[in-house]
Amino acid sequence: MTSSVTPLDNLDVLSPYEVARLQDKTQGGLYSLFRQCALAVLNCGSEMDSTRMVLNRFREFDVQISQKHRGVQLDLINAPAAAFVDGELIQGIHEHLFAVLRDLLYVADKVDGCCEGLDPSASITNQVFNLLRHANALQPHVKPNMVVCWGGHSISHAEYEYTKRVGYEMGLRGMNICTGCGPGAMKGPMKGATIAHAKQRVERARYVGISEPGIIAAESPNPIVNELIIMPDIERRLEAFVRLGHGFIVFPGGVGTAEEILYILGILLQESNRAQPFPLIFTGPAGSEAYFETVDRFIRTTLGERATQCYEIIVDDPHAVAECMRDGLAEVTAHRKATGEAYHFNWQLRIPLALQQTFEPTHAAMRNLCLSRNQPDHVLAAQLRCALSGIVAGNVKEPGIRAIEEHGPFELHGEPEVIDALDQLLESFVSQRRMKINHEEYEPCFRLARAGRAS
Amino acid sequence: MTSSVTPLDNLDVLSPYEVARLQDKTQGGLYSLFRQCALAVLNCGSEMDSTRMVLNRFREFDVQISQKHRGVQLDLINAPAAAFVDGELIQGIHEHLFAVLRDLLYVADKVDGCCEGLDPSASITNQVFNLLRHANALQPHVKPNMVVCWGGHSISHAEYEYTKRVGYEMGLRGMNICTGCGPGAMKGPMKGATIAHAKQRVERARYVGISEPGIIAAESPNPIVNELIIMPDIERRLEAFVRLGHGFIVFPGGVGTAEEILYILGILLQESNRAQPFPLIFTGPAGSEAYFETVDRFIRTTLGERATQCYEIIVDDPHAVAECMRDGLAEVTAHRKATGEAYHFNWQLRIPLALQQTFEPTHAAMRNLCLSRNQPDHVLAAQLRCALSGIVAGNVKEPGIRAIEEHGPFELHGEPEVIDALDQLLESFVSQRRMKINHEEYEPCFRLARAGRAS
Amino acid sequence: MTSSVTPLDNLDVLSPYEVARLQDKTQGGLYSLFRQCALAVLNCGSEMDSTRMVLNRFREFDVQISQKHRGVQLDLINAPAAAFVDGELIQGIHEHLFAVLRDLLYVADKVDGCCEGLDPSASITNQVFNLLRHANALQPHVKPNMVVCWGGHSISHAEYEYTKRVGYEMGLRGMNICTGCGPGAMKGPMKGATIAHAKQRVERARYVGISEPGIIAAESPNPIVNELIIMPDIERRLEAFVRLGHGFIVFPGGVGTAEEILYILGILLQESNRAQPFPLIFTGPAGSEAYFETVDRFIRTTLGERATQCYEIIVDDPHAVAECMRDGLAEVTAHRKATGEAYHFNWQLRIPLALQQTFEPTHAAMRNLCLSRNQPDHVLAAQLRCALSGIVAGNVKEPGIRAIEEHGPFELHGEPEVIDALDQLLESFVSQRRMKINHEEYEPCFRLARAGRAS
Amino acid sequence: MTSSVTPLDNLDVLSPYEVARLQDKTQGGLYSLFRQCALAVLNCGSEMDSTRMVLNRFREFDVQISQKHRGVQLDLINAPAAAFVDGELIQGIHEHLFAVLRDLLYVADKVDGCCEGLDPSASITNQVFNLLRHANALQPHVKPNMVVCWGGHSISHAEYEYTKRVGYEMGLRGMNICTGCGPGAMKGPMKGATIAHAKQRVERARYVGISEPGIIAAESPNPIVNELIIMPDIERRLEAFVRLGHGFIVFPGGVGTAEEILYILGILLQESNRAQPFPLIFTGPAGSEAYFETVDRFIRTTLGERATQCYEIIVDDPHAVAECMRDGLAEVTAHRKATGEAYHFNWQLRIPLALQQTFEPTHAAMRNLCLSRNQPDHVLAAQLRCALSGIVAGNVKEPGIRAIEEHGPFELHGEPEVIDALDQLLESFVSQRRMKINHEEYEPCFRLARAGRAS
Repeated sequence: MTSSVTPLDNLDVLSPYEVARLQDKTQGGLYSLFRQCALAVLNCGSEMDSTRMVLNRFREFDVQISQKHRGVQLDLINAPAAAFVDGELIQGIHEHLFAVLRDLLYVADKVDGCCEGLDPSASITNQVFNLLRHANALQPHVKPNMVVCWGGHSISHAEYEYTKRVGYEMGLRGMNICTGCGPGAMKGPMKGATIAHAKQRVERARYVGISEPGIIAAESPNPIVNELIIMPDIERRLEAFVRLGHGFIVFPGGVGTAEEILYILGILLQESNRAQPFPLIFTGPAGSEAYFETVDRFIRTTLGERATQCYEIIVDDPHAVAECMRDGLAEVTAHRKATGEAYHFNWQLRIPLALQQTFEPTHAAMRNLCLSRNQPDHVLAAQLRCALSGIVAGNVKEPGIRAIEEHGPFELHGEPEVIDALDQLLESFVSQRRMKINHEEYEPCFRLARAGRAS
Repeated sequence: MTSSVTPLDNLDVLSPYEVARLQDKTQGGLYSLFRQCALAVLNCGSEMDSTRMVLNRFREFDVQISQKHRGVQLDLINAPAAAFVDGELIQGIHEHLFAVLRDLLYVADKVDGCCEGLDPSASITNQVFNLLRHANALQPHVKPNMVVCWGGHSISHAEYEYTKRVGYEMGLRGMNICTGCGPGAMKGPMKGATIAHAKQRVERARYVGISEPGIIAAESPNPIVNELIIMPDIERRLEAFVRLGHGFIVFPGGVGTAEEILYILGILLQESNRAQPFPLIFTGPAGSEAYFETVDRFIRTTLGERATQCYEIIVDDPHAVAECMRDGLAEVTAHRKATGEAYHFNWQLRIPLALQQTFEPTHAAMRNLCLSRNQPDHVLAAQLRCALSGIVAGNVKEPGIRAIEEHGPFELHGEPEVIDALDQLLESFVSQRRMKINHEEYEPCFRLARAGRAS
Repeated sequence: MTSSVTPLDNLDVLSPYEVARLQDKTQGGLYSLFRQCALAVLNCGSEMDSTRMVLNRFREFDVQISQKHRGVQLDLINAPAAAFVDGELIQGIHEHLFAVLRDLLYVADKVDGCCEGLDPSASITNQVFNLLRHANALQPHVKPNMVVCWGGHSISHAEYEYTKRVGYEMGLRGMNICTGCGPGAMKGPMKGATIAHAKQRVERARYVGISEPGIIAAESPNPIVNELIIMPDIERRLEAFVRLGHGFIVFPGGVGTAEEILYILGILLQESNRAQPFPLIFTGPAGSEAYFETVDRFIRTTLGERATQCYEIIVDDPHAVAECMRDGLAEVTAHRKATGEAYHFNWQLRIPLALQQTFEPTHAAMRNLCLSRNQPDHVLAAQLRCALSGIVAGNVKEPGIRAIEEHGPFELHGEPEVIDALDQLLESFVSQRRMKINHEEYEPCFRLARAGRAS
Repeated sequence: MTSSVTPLDNLDVLSPYEVARLQDKTQGGLYSLFRQCALAVLNCGSEMDSTRMVLNRFREFDVQISQKHRGVQLDLINAPAAAFVDGELIQGIHEHLFAVLRDLLYVADKVDGCCEGLDPSASITNQVFNLLRHANALQPHVKPNMVVCWGGHSISHAEYEYTKRVGYEMGLRGMNICTGCGPGAMKGPMKGATIAHAKQRVERARYVGISEPGIIAAESPNPIVNELIIMPDIERRLEAFVRLGHGFIVFPGGVGTAEEILYILGILLQESNRAQPFPLIFTGPAGSEAYFETVDRFIRTTLGERATQCYEIIVDDPHAVAECMRDGLAEVTAHRKATGEAYHFNWQLRIPLALQQTFEPTHAAMRNLCLSRNQPDHVLAAQLRCALSGIVAGNVKEPGIRAIEEHGPFELHGEPEVIDALDQLLESFVSQRRMKINHEEYEPCFRLARAGRAS
C-alpha cells in the first residue's frame, strides 16, 4: 500500500529546520529512527513480535518526508495494507504516525537539555515531565483515574478475554487505561473499557499508550490508543508509567512483565515511598493462577515477605478488581489532596537513579549484576530487574539478539538461593509457554551461575 | 435498587401540565405506559424475552414522578440492580429513561394531531417525520451512512460474534448503526462498530435504537444505543426504520425478522419504488446458511423470482458485506442528489396504507388474511407480514399471549401452495430453534388452513 | 440586493407540508406574514419606525420559498442592501430569518392547541412556555442572570451611550440581556455587554430579542441579538419578557415604554405577587431625569404611593445600576431556591387574564376603558396600559394608523384626576420629543374626555 | 486590591523547577521581570504611559508565587483595583497574567537555544517561530485573515472612533486583528471588530496582542486581547508582527508608529521581497491627514519615490479600507498557494539581520547611526528606524529616560537633507501633539547634527 498523509492541524506547524532533521539520513538525523517507528505503527494488528522480523518483512517500506506549505507530508511506500481501509489510513494510526514524529522531534531538540542546577535524578524526572507535558498527557485537576495495565502481549485467548472484562468493569467506573501499546494484555483492557465508556457516555476517555523505539516494533500500538507517547528509552518509559498512572494492574505475561514488577518493587521498597498509597493488583482468569504463584514465590524468596505486601492478587474476578482499584484510587486522591500534591504527575515518588539510568544489556553488564540478598531489598530488586531486562533484550530486541548470536548466552551470577529462584521463575515461564511466540525452538539467551557452586 | 434521577438538561424543561400527565394513573394518563417502558430500559442485559416475565419479576418496581424546580424527578423503586454501577445509574440507561419520557409526552400531545389536508398515508408519514425530528434523529446534510440491522435477539454465540464483525467492518467505513434496540443481532453490530469508531476517531457515531411500547420489554435497549426513539406502535416503528435508514442488513432471526423482511418486500415490490436504490443484504456466518435458504425459498415460492432480486445474500464474509453496503450507500447518495431528495428522511419511498395501518392480531383479523397469490405481489407480501406479525404477538406480546390462552391458536387461511410454504418456513424455524427462547415447550400459537383442502 | 439563502442545519428539516404552508399566499397561509417579518429582519439598522414606511420603501421586496432537498431555500428579491457584506447576508440576520420561520411555523401548527383541562390564563401561559421552549430559550439550571431592558427605540445620543455603559457594567458581571429587539435602548445594552463579555470571555452570552409581527417592522432586530423569538402577539410578548427575565431595567422611552411600565405594575400590584422579589430599576443619564420624574408622578397620582415602591430610580450611575441588579438577582436566586421554583421560567408570577388577553385598540374598545381610581389599583394599571397600547398603535402600527385616518382620534374617558395625569404625561412626552421620530408634525391620535366634565 | 489566582488548566502544569525560576529574585531569576509585566497587565485601562510612572504609582504592588498542588498560585498584593469586578479578576486579565508567565518561562528555558547549523538570521527567525508556536498563535490551514494594526496609543477621540469603525468593517469581513496591545489605535480596531464578529457569529475571533517587557508597562494589553504574546525584545516583537500578519494597517501615531513604518519599509525595499504581495494601508479620519502627509513626505525625501509605492493612503473611509484589505488578503492567499507557502507564518519574507538584531539605544549607538542616502535604501530605512527607536526609548522607556537624564540628549548625525527631513518630521509630530501625553513640558531627547554643517 502506498499513500500520502498530512498531519493533523496541531502538528502541521513545523519549521523547515525540523523537517530537515526528519529527512536527515545521517547518523545524527532522525530519518532511520522515524522510519522504524512509523513501520511499527503501521504494522499494528500483526502477530510478529520481533523487530527484525518486522523489518525484514517490510524491507521495501519507506517513508518519504517532504514539505508542503511548510508543513510536512509523509509519503508511505509499501506500507502494511492492514493499516488502510478503502485506501485510507485508519485515523487512529494516522494520529500515531504524527505522535511519533512529535516525540522524536521533541527529544531530538532537548537531548542535551539538562536543567542547570538539578541533580541527575531530578533532571531525568524533569525530562520525563517535560516530554509528557509536551505530548499533552498531563491534565491537571482531573481526579486520579489513570490505571496502568501491564501484562504479556502474547497471552492465551482466555487471558485476553479476561483483560477485556477487567477493562469493561473499570470503564464502567470511569477509569482510563494506560498500557504499553501492544496486543494482548495491552489491548484487551482498552477494548473492554471502550464498550463501557460508550455505555457511560464518557466522551474524553483516555487510552494512553507509552512506548519507546526499542520495543515499538514488537508491540505495535493498537489503534484504540488515542494518546501515543514515545519515550526515548525503556527507563524513561517505565518512569512515565509510574508518574502518570494512579493505579496499576498486572495481568499474566512473560519476562517483560516480571521486569516491570521488579521495577515497581524496586521503587516501592524505598523507605521514602512507603507512606504513599499505590494500588497494585496482580490478576488473571481462572486457569492462570500459576503465573502469579510463580512470581509471588520468587518475590517472597528473593525480596522477602515485606515485598509481597506491596500488591494484591485477585483471581478471576473482574468486578472485585475494579472495586479494589476504585478504592485504591480514592486513597490516592485523598493522599494527593492531603499532601498538596498534583493529580497529574506523581512528583512525590522517589525513583532511585539506578532505576532511571539506562541499563545497556551487554555481556559484561549482565555478568556484573549482583544477584544477592546481602544488600538492601530495593537494590536487589533493581538488579533483578536489570537481569530480566537483559533477557527480554536477548529474546526480542534487535541488538540483544545480535549480541547473543555473536557472543553466546548472557551469564548471570549471584547467591545460589537467588539464582535458584530465578531459574525456577524462568523455567516455569518456559513451561507456561510465556517465553516467546515461537515456543518450539526456544533456546534460552542466558546462563545462570551460582556463586560458590559450579553452575 | 432504589434511586433518584433528574433529567439531562435539555429535558429538564417540562411544564407542570406535562408532569401531571406523567403522574396520571388513569386510563388516559401516561403513568402506566411510562412505568412499563422505564422498567424495560432498566432491565437491559436481561435474558427474559417476554413482557409478562419481566413485569412479573419486577412486580415491586415503581417509578414515582415528582416535581423538582418545576422540572421532573424520577424516583426508581426496586429497579433492576444491573442498571447501576456503584449505586449510580449507567449513563446510557439514564439517557434512555428520559428519551422514553420525551417520546411518550410528544406522542400524547399530538395524538390527534393529524394535519388537515393530508391524506391518511401522508398524515402517518408526517407523524413519523415529526416524531423523529423532535427526537433530533434527523440530521440534514450528512451523507447517507445509516445502516439498519435487523435480526434475532436470541441467536447463537457464533451468530452474535459474526454480527460484531460485520459491525466492526462497517464502523471502520464510518457507517452508523440503527437497530431495534435489544440484544443479539441488535446489539452485536453496535458493539463491533464502537470499537471501529474508536479506531477511526469517529466522535459523533450514532447508535440509533427504535422501539415501541409493545416490544420494548422483550427487547431492552442496550446502553450503547445513544439515540433511543420510542415510536407509538409497530407500524410506525417499521416506517421509521425504512425512512431513516439508508442501507439494510438482515442477520438470522426468527419470525419477527421474517416479518421485517416481508414488510420491506411489500414496499419494494411497489411499482413506484422500483427506481430507488435500496441496499438490502441478508447475511450470517458459516453454519447459519439454513436460515436464509429457508427464507429465500419461501419468498421465491410465494412472491416469485422478482422479489428475490430485491436483496443479496452473503455468507460468512463481513468484509464483503461492508464493501457491498458501502457501494450501495454510494448509489443511494447519488440517487438522492440526482433527485434533489433529502438525505435525512426517505420521503420518496411510497409505503402503502395497508403497511402503515395498525394490524391488530385478533383471531378474526388473522382468519381474514388472504394468503393467496392471485393478488399483486406487494399485497400478498403485506398479508404475509400481518400473518407473521400475529405469530410474533402470539409468541411474545402480552395481549397476544392472553388471546391465545383464551381462544386457542390463530387460524390462517390461504392458497395451499402459500400455506405450505408458510408451514415449511415456520417448521424450519422451530427446527432451527428460532421460535422462542424456551424451545422445549414451544407450542405453536397458530393453525394453518389450506383453502379447498381440509387443514 | 437579491440572494439565496438556505437554513442553518437545525432548521433544514422541514416537511413538505410545512414548506407548503410557508408558500401559501391565501388568507390562512403564512406567506404574507413571513414576507413582512423577513423584510423587517433584513431592514435592521434603518431609522424608519413605521411599518408602512418600511413596506412602502421596499414594495419590490419579495421572498420566494422553494424546496431544495426537501429543506427550504429562500430567494430574497430586492432585499435591503445593508443586510449584506460583500454579497453575503450578515450571519446574525441569516439566523434571524430562520428564527422567524421557526416561530411562525410553530405558532401556525399550535394555534388551536389549547391544552384540555387548563383554564384560559394557564393555557396562555402554557403556550408562552411551549413557544419559548421550542425556541430553545429555556435553559435550566442556569443561575438567574437574564436582565430585560426596556426603553425607547428613538432616544438621544447621550441616552444611547448611557444604555451602552449600563450594558457594559452588567456584562462585566456576567449578566445576559433581553430586549425588544430594536434600535436605541434595545440595542445599546447589548452592544455594551458584548464588549464586556469579550473581556470576561463569556462564551455563550445571550442577547435575546423578543418581538411580534405587529411591531417587528418598526423595531428591526439588531444583528447582535443571537436569540430572536417571535411571539404571536403583543400580550404574549410581554408575558414572555416577564416569565423569562429575572431582572428588569427601564431606560427612557416614549409611550410604549410607559405601557410596559404599567403592564408590569398591573402584575406586581396583585396581592399574590407581592412576596416575590422582582428587581425593577428605572435609569437614565444626567439630563434625562425628566422622563422618570414624569412617569413617577403619574404613577403616584393614579396608582398611589404603594405602586412607587415596586421600582427604584437611579440617575446617571451605570455602576450602581449593575450592583443593584446583581443584588436583586441574588435575591431572585435565593427565592427561587427556597420555593423550589424553576430558574428558567417564572411560573410563580400570577398574570391576570386581563393582561394576557389581546387588547384590540378599536375606537370602541378605547372609549370603553375605565380610567378611574375606584377600582383595585392593579385593574386600573391594566386599563391604563390598554390606553397607552392604543396610543402606540395609533402612532406607529399599520392598522392603528389606518383606523385613526378613517375615524379620527381615539377617545379616552375617565376620572378627571386620572385623565389629567394622563394628559400631563403625554404632554410631557411631546415636549420631551418622545412621541415619534417625526416630532414636527406630531398630531395626537387620541382625545381625552374627563368624566363629568366637558373635555 | 489583594487577591489569589490560579492558572487556567493548560498552564497549571508547571514543574517545581519552573516555579523556582519564577520565585527567583536574583539577577538571573524571573521574579522581577514577571512582577513588572504582571503589573502592566493588571494596570490596563490606565492612562499612564511611562513605565516609571506605573512602577512608582504601584510601588506597593507585589506578586507572590507559590506552589499549590505542584501548580502555581499567584498572590496579587495591592493590585490596581480596576482589574477586578466584584473582587474577581476580569477573566481576560487573568488569562494575560498567565500568558506572561508562559512566555517568560519559555524564553528563559530557550535563551541559549540557538539551533546548530542555522545562520544568525535564520536562528532568530526560528526562535520567533518557536515562541509563536508555543503560544499557540500559529494556526495552520486558515486562510490569511490576520490584519496587524499599528498606530498611536495616545490619539484623539475622533481618531479612536475611526479605528473602531475600521475594525468594525474588517470584522464584518471575518478578519482578525493583531496589535501591540495597548490603548488607542491598538484597542479601537479590536473593539469595532468585536461588535462585527458578534453580528457575524464569528466564534473563534482572534484579537492578538504582541508586546515585550520593555514596552508593556506603557501599553497595557486591553482585556479584549484574547491571545497575548510577550516576545523577548522589540526586534523579535516586530518580526512576530510581520511574520504572523497577512495585512497591515497604520493609523496615526507618534514616533513609535513612524519607527514601525520604517522597519517595514526596510524589509519591503529588499530586492528579494518585492515579488511578495504585502497589503499596507495608512489611514485616518478626516482631520488627521497631516500625519500621513508628513510621513509620506519624509519617506519620499529620504527613501525615494519607490518606497512610497509600498503603501496606500486612504483618508476617512473605513469601508474602502476594509475592501482594499480584503483584496490584498486575497492576493496574499493566492501568492501563498502558488508558492506552496504556509498561511500561518511568513517564512518567505527576508528580514535583514540589521533589523533583527537588538538596537541598544546608547548615546554612542545613536551617534554612530549613518543617516545618509549614499547607501541602499533599505539600509537607510533600517538606520532611520534605529534613530526613531532611540527617540521612543528616550521618551518613554525606563533605561532610555535614565540615560537622557544622565548624559543629555542623544546626538544624531547624517546627510543634511535627511537630517532636515527628520527634523521636520519630528517637529510636525510635536506640533500635532503626538510626542508624548504630557505635551506641555515636552523636551526633546535628541539633537540633530547635519554632516558638514554646524548643527
